[in-house]
Amino acid sequence: MTRLKVTVFPKTGVLDPQGKAIERALAGLDFAGVGEVRVGKVMIVELAETDAARAKATGEEMARKLLANTVIESFTVEVM
Amino acid sequence: MTRLKVTVFPKTGVLDPQGKAIERALAGLDFAGVGEVRVGKVMIVELAETDAARAKATGEEMARKLLANTVIESFTVEVM
Repeated sequence: MTRLKVTVFPKTGVLDPQGKAIERALAGLDFAGVGEVRVGKVMIVELAETDAARAKATGEEMARKLLANTVIESFTVEVM
Repeated sequence: MTRLKVTVFPKTGVLDPQGKAIERALAGLDFAGVGEVRVGKVMIVELAETDAARAKATGEEMARKLLANTVIESFTVEVM
């Protein structure tokens, strides 16, 4: 079994309203010196595949087809 | 400036409906051998603080107060 970590973030330049909301909320809680906040998703996917390279390729296909919206999001796939 | 990566996942045993939906969607896309999928959030937070230990402590406080619901979620804070 292989576990993949797929991380998805809005691309640079794409507005990240969740991140902006967190910036404001942190300021409201009196956290000082907070700069930009970006919010992404992370998915741990268990695969029966035992070959790491093939598992990673499958993870990238999953990201392109389902897990990420590649128009506005970029993704990384790591074998854990 | 310090960048923190705060990762938040549902605790083991807590139902993860997003993960279940992705499992089903991947099966529907004919990906074989998919086991459990867990979905979490990841936040990159820029802090003016330059001391890594203090930045990490601040990040943990942010997670406890705002970024994670510690009743059902666990979090990790890494200095990037």
